[in-house]
Amino acid sequence: MPKIVDHDKRKIKIAETTWKVIIRDGLEQASVRKIANAASLSVGALRHYFSTQSELFQFSMKLVADQVKQRIARKNYDGEPLDVMKEIVSELLPVDEDRRIEMEVWLVFSTRTLVDPSLKQLSQTVYKEIRHAATLVIEGLINLQLAKDDLNKELEIERLYALVDGLALHALLHPDQLSIEKMQDTIKYHLESLCNGNG
Amino acid sequence: MPKIVDHDKRKIKIAETTWKVIIRDGLEQASVRKIANAASLSVGALRHYFSTQSELFQFSMKLVADQVKQRIARKNYDGEPLDVMKEIVSELLPVDEDRRIEMEVWLVFSTRTLVDPSLKQLSQTVYKEIRHAATLVIEGLINLQLAKDDLNKELEIERLYALVDGLALHALLHPDQLSIEKMQDTIKYHLESLCNGNG
Repeated sequence: MPKIVDHDKRKIKIAETTWKVIIRDGLEQASVRKIANAASLSVGALRHYFSTQSELFQFSMKLVADQVKQRIARKNYDGEPLDVMKEIVSELLPVDEDRRIEMEVWLVFSTRTLVDPSLKQLSQTVYKEIRHAATLVIEGLINLQLAKDDLNKELEIERLYALVDGLALHALLHPDQLSIEKMQDTIKYHLESLCNGNG
Repeated sequence: MPKIVDHDKRKIKIAETTWKVIIRDGLEQASVRKIANAASLSVGALRHYFSTQSELFQFSMKLVADQVKQRIARKNYDGEPLDVMKEIVSELLPVDEDRRIEMEVWLVFSTRTLVDPSLKQLSQTVYKEIRHAATLVIEGLINLQLAKDDLNKELEIERLYALVDGLALHALLHPDQLSIEKMQDTIKYHLESLCNGNG
């Protein structure tokens, strides 16, 4: 079904253009007309893919979570377990330009949910999906018997998830204060502190 | 100098009204006219205190950090050291309605800095001030010899600061997923994990 594939690919392209406009001009300035222009489409052609701005925004936000999920699913789980865990966590951090763009879009949309109920349900889905990635890491460390015996699983998941999003937030807003390297050192330090023989 | 005091008090009142309008309608919708209306002032009277919207926004953002700093400075440091540390950290979390309002305003302004250079410098000042509070806590645990010997001070400061802002972000955006109680349990768990005899 090549036509459907093309249709889907085109939707993803438009969503990625939407990200760029949001990052350049802010969400409030990201009108359908401006996004169509940036994607070299007429407004009518864009409406063929997304009939409303809200639909376009929801798809664009969902694409962030989908890409993160896909990258985690595609991971090669052959290396040292702790290294694999660090790599999974890195998928949730702005460690390169692509991930920085995704996270900036995620932050802008998340903040918008405070006054825009139409994005709330999707925001909750994304929240749970990313939390699931943190759960995978903590359960992985426990199941592989790398983790210390006295860990509180529920609080460790909450702690790792908050740590990841806090680091992402700081690196995004203050890249001159929190370098990518320091962000990764902090995650490495944290994961090692949960394991036997490190504390 | 009662006149100056009145002037300052009035500025704070206007800034607090600005917070309310931002939380109700979003930052983009928070026009000077709307804020003046909400503060029962004419636009001309409001301009007497803040000659531009940018000045008003900067003052409103700075007030968040000032209030947090003042609360930490006023703290009674007489209790059990670990309890005092938990209380300091609680000043940085949305544990009640006043703090939730402050943090929502902080998040909205912080996100805005991504496309509005006029707020960047202030945002950096706030970042450093709140980081200083995290530093106080980690140095306090070390100086009181409560902390484990092998802590990496720099990474512990980064970790605590990111954890606090990550929890604040989650509780703000997903209060139904992360309760105030669970947020506080996570902080308690984290601080105890840094101390002797708990790991």
